[in-house]
Amino acid sequence: MENASHVVVVGGGFGGLQTVHGLSGAGARVTLIDQRNHHLFQPLLYQAATTILPISEIAWPLRRLLRHRKDATTLLARVSGIDKAAREVIFEDGQSITYDTLVLATGARHAYFGHDDWEPYAPGLKTLEDATNIRRRVLFAFEAAERAASDELRQAHMTFAVIGAGPTGVELVGVIAELAQRILPSEFRNIDSRQSRVLLVEAGPKVLNAFPDKLSDYARDALEALGVEVMTGQAVTACDSKGISLGDTRIPARTIIWAAGVQASGAARWLEADADRAGRVFVEPDLTVKNHPEIFVIGDTAAVKTAEGKPVPGIAPAAKQMGNYVAGVIRSRLKNAPAPEPFRYRHQGNLATVGRSAAVVDFGRFKLKGALAWWFWGIAHIYFLIGTRSRVTVAWSWLWSYVTGQNSARLITTPEVTKQADVDGS
Amino acid sequence: MENASHVVVVGGGFGGLQTVHGLSGAGARVTLIDQRNHHLFQPLLYQAATTILPISEIAWPLRRLLRHRKDATTLLARVSGIDKAAREVIFEDGQSITYDTLVLATGARHAYFGHDDWEPYAPGLKTLEDATNIRRRVLFAFEAAERAASDELRQAHMTFAVIGAGPTGVELVGVIAELAQRILPSEFRNIDSRQSRVLLVEAGPKVLNAFPDKLSDYARDALEALGVEVMTGQAVTACDSKGISLGDTRIPARTIIWAAGVQASGAARWLEADADRAGRVFVEPDLTVKNHPEIFVIGDTAAVKTAEGKPVPGIAPAAKQMGNYVAGVIRSRLKNAPAPEPFRYRHQGNLATVGRSAAVVDFGRFKLKGALAWWFWGIAHIYFLIGTRSRVTVAWSWLWSYVTGQNSARLITTPEVTKQADVDGS
Repeated sequence: MENASHVVVVGGGFGGLQTVHGLSGAGARVTLIDQRNHHLFQPLLYQAATTILPISEIAWPLRRLLRHRKDATTLLARVSGIDKAAREVIFEDGQSITYDTLVLATGARHAYFGHDDWEPYAPGLKTLEDATNIRRRVLFAFEAAERAASDELRQAHMTFAVIGAGPTGVELVGVIAELAQRILPSEFRNIDSRQSRVLLVEAGPKVLNAFPDKLSDYARDALEALGVEVMTGQAVTACDSKGISLGDTRIPARTIIWAAGVQASGAARWLEADADRAGRVFVEPDLTVKNHPEIFVIGDTAAVKTAEGKPVPGIAPAAKQMGNYVAGVIRSRLKNAPAPEPFRYRHQGNLATVGRSAAVVDFGRFKLKGALAWWFWGIAHIYFLIGTRSRVTVAWSWLWSYVTGQNSARLITTPEVTKQADVDGS
Repeated sequence: MENASHVVVVGGGFGGLQTVHGLSGAGARVTLIDQRNHHLFQPLLYQAATTILPISEIAWPLRRLLRHRKDATTLLARVSGIDKAAREVIFEDGQSITYDTLVLATGARHAYFGHDDWEPYAPGLKTLEDATNIRRRVLFAFEAAERAASDELRQAHMTFAVIGAGPTGVELVGVIAELAQRILPSEFRNIDSRQSRVLLVEAGPKVLNAFPDKLSDYARDALEALGVEVMTGQAVTACDSKGISLGDTRIPARTIIWAAGVQASGAARWLEADADRAGRVFVEPDLTVKNHPEIFVIGDTAAVKTAEGKPVPGIAPAAKQMGNYVAGVIRSRLKNAPAPEPFRYRHQGNLATVGRSAAVVDFGRFKLKGALAWWFWGIAHIYFLIGTRSRVTVAWSWLWSYVTGQNSARLITTPEVTKQADVDGS
């Protein structure tokens, strides 16, 4: 194996992991590099952020996932650059590793469209740490409200603003509304958590923009039934520690969550390659970088179009399809076989949940909404979870939550928490 | 209720929570104050620190535990002092709350016997954050070893030193040895995790000092069978980021864990009361503070003797007995009934696990060791876990670990992890 072609995959998300899986038995030596030790099942991240699931059930150590792959090595390291001429990936600590083939699948972070200064006040949701941070903020807001010194301050602590009404925003706001309306009321003595304001702010004209109008309208109605104030056509113009501004309207809100956009990781910078406004690298029809057939870019890091000329959405199935495709191209090369056809994205559908018992499902001709859609969504996601253990635990957590009306993951685990108390309005 | 006698309990551990439970229906108004939002089941904390259990299964929000107690309020706040004359508990943020009766159950932290500068290098295990920190260090040590630039550095990363051979030290070291010997070997390509050194360093003459010699000897043998190097009669004389010194012997070890002693919380300072060397407040036979019958101190914060004149051990059953007793005293006073007899500790026994399939149990005449003792220990702890959900999940995690030989809680969740890489020996 020492002389085998060396494939280096950067990023252990859906795209990177699928590439590694697709290279099983291909005769290559594979190195998977990630700055974290785990693969994260992002579609359920909003549940970890909103106390439904423990974070331990939606992420798995990459080493464990690849333990049977004797041809694959996992490295926990942070990439800082790429030397295309020397075919080297360079790490932050100064070490480096050479490749014959490089696959960049480094994903995306949330983006603030030129307002990076908003990030401390309006955190986004992309990692386990983000989820813990948002959970802490949401739970702590109720604690601060319970101890607030004035009505005005109490109301600010009990106002939650989620910015961006895509699937992540809709899913977050649905669970926050249910926490306030159904789960927490019996636990507080000074406040009535049902009087919380839960806002979903969207600059565009509708919620769930990628869905047909009928499902968007249903989702909006279902959110409003949960007590969410849906504010479409409203752009956030300011954002600070005390609240948000929508033009002339000021809304005091101590908990703000950003779900309005993403920016690709630094791959374009590492490669000095052309990229679109969101930082996604422009790739050839076979997902390679121009003039560098040995470098592939996939998933949220790549700017890829559908057959209809629309951007391929930044969702798990798209990343997996690209990972699979790239593994196929590499296998063909290793066998000196003809190159496969250009990559073609097959859209399978869109799903989003609304609270804990409704969802919208759009698979083209097959559309579904309400409780049945939730069950479809739940079964599909349990099917895609990796590992029997997590499947059982997640199903158990959902069943428990459904039967008892209580969520299980309600711990605040930051020691500094009470320092941020701000209960006296300072 | 507004005019009811107000009992303020500080600390939501075993002692504080038992006090609140014991006051159910007593006609008092109860306020439970804690700087964290959860009760922690400390006897299983070592399992969270060593990847056996997710942290979400060994802690529960205090609010949730008390949601049916309409006479009880929970406050998330950090206490900074007590004004005995005004009968006020003062919070760090400047707010305060008055009491008629005060119960201090604020527990203990690990102590370094005059070597507080060792803390950054040898963290202790008392909170969920401690557990996450230790888990991160242990898992990261193997990652760093996998990438180490020299044999010497690799060996330092693969050397784990636990200081203190009480139950916590023995339990930690047992699981770390099993991780190295049984769980991780298949996952690494550059290192053989079975070549790790796992040290248990104890200044006293034997492991598990509170147990009879026969059980101590058994535990030592069982640890050695797991590959642990047990070093008794060896005091640590220096401790830094690179290793430990035992007199003239220097041992390079990048992961050091402190399990050698505890110091009571700041209650003595708040009260300006007499305390023993470990900071435990001297209390009257009814667990009140001298000249202040309205202030009780219980659990690890109190210096209490057994009928034989030995210190009551700092374990959960002792704290619960004291909480129960104090609730009884308060109830008697509310009814103007005669005061109960002085507090008397009833020792039920000592338990400690050795790895994942052996334990020692000492209930006086009833002694047990080996696999049967582990089952006894496991069933006892599942019985004492709060809530059906956790019982099922913990049993499931143990069963999973037992059948598959894999632990479930292996996530590193600190973004800075690779910055601490230190793989090049710097």
